Amino acid sequence: MTKKLTSRSDNYSQWYQDLVIKADMAENSAVRGCMVIKPYGYAIWEKMQAELDRMFKETGHVNAYFPLFIPKSFFNKEADHVEGFAKECAVVTHYRLKNDKETGKIVVDPDAKLEEELIIRPTSETIIWHTYRNWIQSHRDLPLLINQWANVVRWEMRTRLFLRTAEFLWQEGHTAHATKDEAIEEAMKMINVYADFAENYMAMPVVKGVKTESERFAGALDTYTIEALMQDGKALQSGTSHFLGQNFAKAFDVKFTNKEGVEEYVWATSWGVSTRLIGGLIMAHSDDNGLVLPPKLAPIQVVVVPIYKKLEQLAIISEEVEKIVDDLKKAGISVKFDDSDQKKPGWKFAEYELKGVPVRLAIGPRDLENRTVEVARRDTLEKSVVPIEGITEYVENLLEEIQQNIFRKALDFRAQNTNKADTWEEFKEIIENKGGFVSAHWDGTPETEENIKMETKATVRCIPLDNELEEGKCIYSGKPSKQRVLFAIAY
Amino acid sequence: MTKKLTSRSDNYSQWYQDLVIKADMAENSAVRGCMVIKPYGYAIWEKMQAELDRMFKETGHVNAYFPLFIPKSFFNKEADHVEGFAKECAVVTHYRLKNDKETGKIVVDPDAKLEEELIIRPTSETIIWHTYRNWIQSHRDLPLLINQWANVVRWEMRTRLFLRTAEFLWQEGHTAHATKDEAIEEAMKMINVYADFAENYMAMPVVKGVKTESERFAGALDTYTIEALMQDGKALQSGTSHFLGQNFAKAFDVKFTNKEGVEEYVWATSWGVSTRLIGGLIMAHSDDNGLVLPPKLAPIQVVVVPIYKKLEQLAIISEEVEKIVDDLKKAGISVKFDDSDQKKPGWKFAEYELKGVPVRLAIGPRDLENRTVEVARRDTLEKSVVPIEGITEYVENLLEEIQQNIFRKALDFRAQNTNKADTWEEFKEIIENKGGFVSAHWDGTPETEENIKMETKATVRCIPLDNELEEGKCIYSGKPSKQRVLFAIAY
Repeated sequence: MTKKLTSRSDNYSQWYQDLVIKADMAENSAVRGCMVIKPYGYAIWEKMQAELDRMFKETGHVNAYFPLFIPKSFFNKEADHVEGFAKECAVVTHYRLKNDKETGKIVVDPDAKLEEELIIRPTSETIIWHTYRNWIQSHRDLPLLINQWANVVRWEMRTRLFLRTAEFLWQEGHTAHATKDEAIEEAMKMINVYADFAENYMAMPVVKGVKTESERFAGALDTYTIEALMQDGKALQSGTSHFLGQNFAKAFDVKFTNKEGVEEYVWATSWGVSTRLIGGLIMAHSDDNGLVLPPKLAPIQVVVVPIYKKLEQLAIISEEVEKIVDDLKKAGISVKFDDSDQKKPGWKFAEYELKGVPVRLAIGPRDLENRTVEVARRDTLEKSVVPIEGITEYVENLLEEIQQNIFRKALDFRAQNTNKADTWEEFKEIIENKGGFVSAHWDGTPETEENIKMETKATVRCIPLDNELEEGKCIYSGKPSKQRVLFAIAY
Repeated sequence: MTKKLTSRSDNYSQWYQDLVIKADMAENSAVRGCMVIKPYGYAIWEKMQAELDRMFKETGHVNAYFPLFIPKSFFNKEADHVEGFAKECAVVTHYRLKNDKETGKIVVDPDAKLEEELIIRPTSETIIWHTYRNWIQSHRDLPLLINQWANVVRWEMRTRLFLRTAEFLWQEGHTAHATKDEAIEEAMKMINVYADFAENYMAMPVVKGVKTESERFAGALDTYTIEALMQDGKALQSGTSHFLGQNFAKAFDVKFTNKEGVEEYVWATSWGVSTRLIGGLIMAHSDDNGLVLPPKLAPIQVVVVPIYKKLEQLAIISEEVEKIVDDLKKAGISVKFDDSDQKKPGWKFAEYELKGVPVRLAIGPRDLENRTVEVARRDTLEKSVVPIEGITEYVENLLEEIQQNIFRKALDFRAQNTNKADTWEEFKEIIENKGGFVSAHWDGTPETEENIKMETKATVRCIPLDNELEEGKCIYSGKPSKQRVLFAIAY
């Protein structure tokens, strides 16, 4: 196998980088911080999009599209938002190039300077709430439940494929409501949709929680989050849903006349997940042989590899395989029959392991005689010999079993890597040596949070939604605390 | 009806503008030249995307994603391309904003100037061929059949919703091939896919043809096009597919080793359609009452309106309607039951006519007694009373009939508005007074083409692919010509 990966234990970060490149998921582009999402990586994004889009529509949302550009002045309108977002942005200042007469090269035309600079959207609250102003007059115009699939740009200094890139793809929901309660309910509903997607499609267990003030979205009153644990013990914030209160309505003067005929500001939410999820998917499940993909999101669920010496054998095997492939396809399973004569079976086995194809079927002349097929599952690397008769049903069940097993494994890992710490020493020891989630008392102040971060790099990932109240003392300050919160070092 | 449209005969351009706004398809945004695609307009784009994406995949293509930004220097590499594309572009020059200490407002940070400016992609040949350089070494890496769904920006001065906007959504296919013939075959295949989509989904007849040199894509050796005729007699270029020869391979040094072990430059195509198609869809079919949508792309195919005086009647009607709706949905038809008590049936009738819903069912108490339903079709505005028994099959057939009728109507319109001109007087007369396609002899020179354009605004839309050779004389210069070409004034 030429495509040897760095092992996770040697260098987790290098393993991730190797894997993304070698499994043909993505690569760095000619533009600093921007990635090219290659067809195999993009196929996973398409599967994610299809499921999420269905879930959004089932919860009453519709899609729309708003401009890529945001006038600079819009960022001045919401005070917290500008602090959080308007800094590391791509700024368009000119709208024309021209030929330089001396060099013959093209240069920016100084005469084509924009009166007001345009910012490439880092997120679209401002332009959308500016637009909503004209869409909302009465309570009959509410709720407005809109989602957008789009690219956004944040000029990050240190980038990593999928996890943090200057440009990324995402969806951003932006909803408008008549009441505070309804907006909070929406924000909660969407964090539940994200958790459902993460656990039941990505097979990635997540903790649902609310962010502390310092980790909140710029402009939100509350940020709900799903936090997942990666195999290196770091947390990945995987999706957020924000209760924005009336902040954006006030900033963009969006009022409605309620049933009693009184004018009120509109209540808002926004929520998003991005191509970062692909990074999470990779880091949550994959191993030193390559990707391990949950069947529900795998571009290819089953690969069939023929084992033969002579081309005549391949012809006979192919005839049998085509029947199997047809039946699998009829059952809605995506199958690839790799009958390429250019590569040996061993090379193909390694390749599809690297690509994380959940199930591999291998069929040789002896299998044909015995009416059997060798079935290998990617998650456990186990092989078994199974009758051709009934193979479709067997594979269907196996895919379901693999989906569940990957989730269970990640859940077990998280359980083993979630610890309570009751003293500062204990906390530091776990964070430094073991990693993972640490459940600990915190006095609730941003100062303590900041100090803990400075000394250990760990941050409060969230206050879990299902948290039990428990009297205790802050591990750092010793001050009284009413509940534990979840700490981790995060991506 | 408060939403009265300008009529087509009064002012076609105003009619279009009114219709796009009043049917809630799109609107102008706060950013000059950029539109907001509203949910109803976006739903049509989603339907278009779904069909096109299926067609691309069935012809062996996969999706990927390349960066939004293109380094300025890339545009210098292909000489023709830079002339055509690198001019009216959005240019990113800075990557940070900061608070101005004096005013408190945010300003562009002069210290955050990019070393090399980045251009927002107007089309992606350059960044993609730069990337392909690393993907292609051997003939075994070919063909590369990749498509991208993306936003692009061209800083147009005069914009019009959907038809010409600074930012628009599109797909761009970029393929790489080992031979010239294969690349030409691909370019032809994709113009056929576009024609199939235009005619069988959009119900919009198109002429397939090849562009003259002056109308060719910047950097292409040949541009294939589909040209449709709008109701005002203007042509709309609706999709193009380019045979790029080895131009981009040479510009970005993309070579492969052929089967004989010899290095060669790669052959290329690119092809795209955009949200402009939505403009075409509107202009091809709609009338003075509003949109007329072909059933295959209508977000709502059937609307059911209850006719009642008292709420008790609505309850009884709803019970019956729910059965009908269930059956229609099972047959894969998208149905909306508008049981809102806020609006009268007359208002609803006008509203769904405006929105172009192909079929409207109305049910009142007398219908219930008679076990009938009133069926109105949007294309002809005809009404008929039909038994509830068998209504699903009736509607299925009717939707198919409407799809075909809309196409036939557009085809008839085009036939009536395609004329031959054999003299310059005749040509001018038709172009000025009647519009439409004019089939006429042309001497094949760019000079004559330009002169005709200057004098009449008409351009050669294409040389139809199925053109018959015919000796004749150029209508303008009188020089000999071997075939007629298709002229029109175009959007």
